[in-house]
Amino acid sequence: MSDSRPLPLGEIPRWDAEHEVVVVGQGVAGGAAAIEAARAGADTVVLERMTRGGGATSLSTGITYFGAGTEIQRACGFEDSVEDMEDFVALAAGEQADPERIRLYCEGSLDHFQWFRDLGVEYKATFIEEKTTHPFTDDCLTYSGNEEAWPHSARARPVPRGHKPAREGEAGGYLMEAVLRGTLEAGASVVNECRAERLVVDGTRVVGVAARREREPFLVKASRGVVLATGGFVFNDEMLAKHAPHLIQCNYKVGTAGDDGSGINMGVAAGGEAINMSEGLVLNAYYPPASHLKGVLVDGQGQRFVNEDSYLGRTSDAILTKADGCAYLVVDDEIHGRTQAFHKLAAVEGSFEELEKALDLPTGSLVRTMTYYNEGAARGEDPLFHKAAKYLKPLVEPPFGALDCSTDASFFGVFTLGGLSVRATGEVLDAGGEPVPGLFAAGRCTAGLCREGRSYASGLSIGDGSFFGRLAGRAAARSEPWS
Amino acid sequence: MSDSRPLPLGEIPRWDAEHEVVVVGQGVAGGAAAIEAARAGADTVVLERMTRGGGATSLSTGITYFGAGTEIQRACGFEDSVEDMEDFVALAAGEQADPERIRLYCEGSLDHFQWFRDLGVEYKATFIEEKTTHPFTDDCLTYSGNEEAWPHSARARPVPRGHKPAREGEAGGYLMEAVLRGTLEAGASVVNECRAERLVVDGTRVVGVAARREREPFLVKASRGVVLATGGFVFNDEMLAKHAPHLIQCNYKVGTAGDDGSGINMGVAAGGEAINMSEGLVLNAYYPPASHLKGVLVDGQGQRFVNEDSYLGRTSDAILTKADGCAYLVVDDEIHGRTQAFHKLAAVEGSFEELEKALDLPTGSLVRTMTYYNEGAARGEDPLFHKAAKYLKPLVEPPFGALDCSTDASFFGVFTLGGLSVRATGEVLDAGGEPVPGLFAAGRCTAGLCREGRSYASGLSIGDGSFFGRLAGRAAARSEPWS
Repeated sequence: MSDSRPLPLGEIPRWDAEHEVVVVGQGVAGGAAAIEAARAGADTVVLERMTRGGGATSLSTGITYFGAGTEIQRACGFEDSVEDMEDFVALAAGEQADPERIRLYCEGSLDHFQWFRDLGVEYKATFIEEKTTHPFTDDCLTYSGNEEAWPHSARARPVPRGHKPAREGEAGGYLMEAVLRGTLEAGASVVNECRAERLVVDGTRVVGVAARREREPFLVKASRGVVLATGGFVFNDEMLAKHAPHLIQCNYKVGTAGDDGSGINMGVAAGGEAINMSEGLVLNAYYPPASHLKGVLVDGQGQRFVNEDSYLGRTSDAILTKADGCAYLVVDDEIHGRTQAFHKLAAVEGSFEELEKALDLPTGSLVRTMTYYNEGAARGEDPLFHKAAKYLKPLVEPPFGALDCSTDASFFGVFTLGGLSVRATGEVLDAGGEPVPGLFAAGRCTAGLCREGRSYASGLSIGDGSFFGRLAGRAAARSEPWS
Repeated sequence: MSDSRPLPLGEIPRWDAEHEVVVVGQGVAGGAAAIEAARAGADTVVLERMTRGGGATSLSTGITYFGAGTEIQRACGFEDSVEDMEDFVALAAGEQADPERIRLYCEGSLDHFQWFRDLGVEYKATFIEEKTTHPFTDDCLTYSGNEEAWPHSARARPVPRGHKPAREGEAGGYLMEAVLRGTLEAGASVVNECRAERLVVDGTRVVGVAARREREPFLVKASRGVVLATGGFVFNDEMLAKHAPHLIQCNYKVGTAGDDGSGINMGVAAGGEAINMSEGLVLNAYYPPASHLKGVLVDGQGQRFVNEDSYLGRTSDAILTKADGCAYLVVDDEIHGRTQAFHKLAAVEGSFEELEKALDLPTGSLVRTMTYYNEGAARGEDPLFHKAAKYLKPLVEPPFGALDCSTDASFFGVFTLGGLSVRATGEVLDAGGEPVPGLFAAGRCTAGLCREGRSYASGLSIGDGSFFGRLAGRAAARSEPWS
């Protein structure tokens, strides 16, 4: 691993560039921070490791979590309020979430949405009826988490809040184009192919960044502050093993190669604390097609363990923790379709008895699970997990298939949800809760809005990064200058 | 939280005491470190926060994990070998464990056992037949983990390795008396009521400890090294929330008030890395009596989720992660006895139908679980979880009771398994894998031998602390002196 220890000011020969605010990383968090720092009047530069900014957001659907009654929500016939949004976001953010962050996020949501529109991001006033993880059209509004799924549905009034930009396919690139354009328009400068390696400190105060630009040292002074927006650490296997070992079994890392924990390590080495490091979002998508939500997910004991209509962050976490990584989605001929993740059919048989045997499940286990499930579904009930009535139907049309949702047989995406401890306004904190002078952070290199994958909703990472990136940029810009 | 940041040498006015090795904490790890440092010829002092040493070990059963063919194992008719022990300890230590530690621990086990006997600890050559968590007699040898439980039993040849000292009741105090006596006999000195607060550093090298002794500052030079042996962090709620939030729901902290993470924080502030911080051992004991292992553990869906004859670290972890904290042990009249933890009877009814209703379980769920279980048990089989045949019996003697094993209704003990990253030989490592000069650690303030609670076996903490405490003491004693 590269050396993340801060470089004392006395050890650097010169500054190659001098700015007030230096933002490290140009994903959505760094982009938002740079825009707001520059708009606040600070001389701002972004150091981006890649040839072009974009980060993990540019690889995503671009869905962002907005609510409290956006114009899109209203046009589609959904009422929402700050309070309703806060009820749900508190569930989604998890038990250890920061109430201050949740409050700020929901109270500021309409403004947050407008911020993106002002950058030129377009959204259509259309609702996506079918439950999906990846809407392929240019339609906008979607239930992007557990809003309609038990037990969340019983605890907060279900409202769709995922907003996809008006572009077909993956729209994250389109969204980031607007952010990159906005960064330059706001007056910030951008240095690409520039890898931040260490922070420069004067005593305990962070005063700059020691980077490498086309392999040459590049020392950048940050008289007001450095904003780390470097992403998570899912691409760093050593860090995963140390902090989130259960995520190692996931076979597809979601993000960019930049998500290697470099910013977290630099921040910790400068005195910051990393928290919530064991948490991550795990993604095994057995839908679309939405008909698969009518399937029955069983573990290696042939038992159910979660309602199949939950957001995939919850079902995937359950596959890992409750089912020990071994799970099958049982479907019948009527609901079977090809999944986006191309799950393999582990077996197709004419009866549950035969399917049970083919999957090597304990004798009688799957049969009794399916008998019980079908009896309930015929009554429109799921006594065990309260799956929504619209996804309940007895599976009675042979042949019966089992899609293999096991960690060793199907696609398990993962990214991390732990990182630097920061105030909602972006100041990086040490273990005693004191700010590290001159250091700010936002996005996936922080422990942010959502603290656990099992309650997550799509759009919370872009939402978190952009919302709190803006605050971090402003906080850095108004920070007392070092001299 | 108190300030854990290291104190630069230039900021201290004087040394109040000067030694070669300073050990912080006199639990089993600190005791072992002090004995070995002193025996290696180093001028050694132990700083102990309490009026008397002992640590969490002195509150425990004193069971220690020894094997590879101890005299006790042989006398009781059990064959064991380094290889067999290594097979099992690797499972118990968990997937992220350090193979080097496992190897050293098993290869050195006979020597480790003799080390305690040489200190005067006595062990009887007797085997404890009945599965129990707390042997109350002065008998010795016990299956103290998942050795006989599926799936461990299928992966490593079951051998008992828990060795309890020859004292009735809790024998940890007796064991620690021997360690405390041995510390003085080895020539180390002990300062009680002395609370280490910060490390003293010369640049990055640790050169001493800033402590408080009867409220007055007490500055102790450590020319060769400081050994942190301060215990875990289960008594620090803020640290639990940051690093192991799922453990907060456990209602009984196992350890002493000293297990507040102070050593971990001091080590991190001096440049060390804390790893594995989310892991802990959770303890909900529904046995003894061993007859309860014939009971059936069900979750809030009335489904089984683990074999009931597993070590309680595994069943308790399963209650938290698989059953979301809600579980009942179903017993019939024949096997019901009072448990050591005094679990409440949530309901007693004449039939499973009535019990299911009384517990508000989904209609039909418990009945089908019990029917399936009883059918298998009648054949001597547990198709779902392979509970050992000796604990299988159909539950058919009404009335039927449900012992409440839920987190909000019964005793859930917990201690932490994360801490400083250290070499097997005790050197504290930074995030880049480089040693922090002059700093060593052992015991529960480190990420040690066992990395996960669900696979843990009783005796691995005392075993880990004492074994690697000895190595840390020796490493500190032979460290190059600072001048």
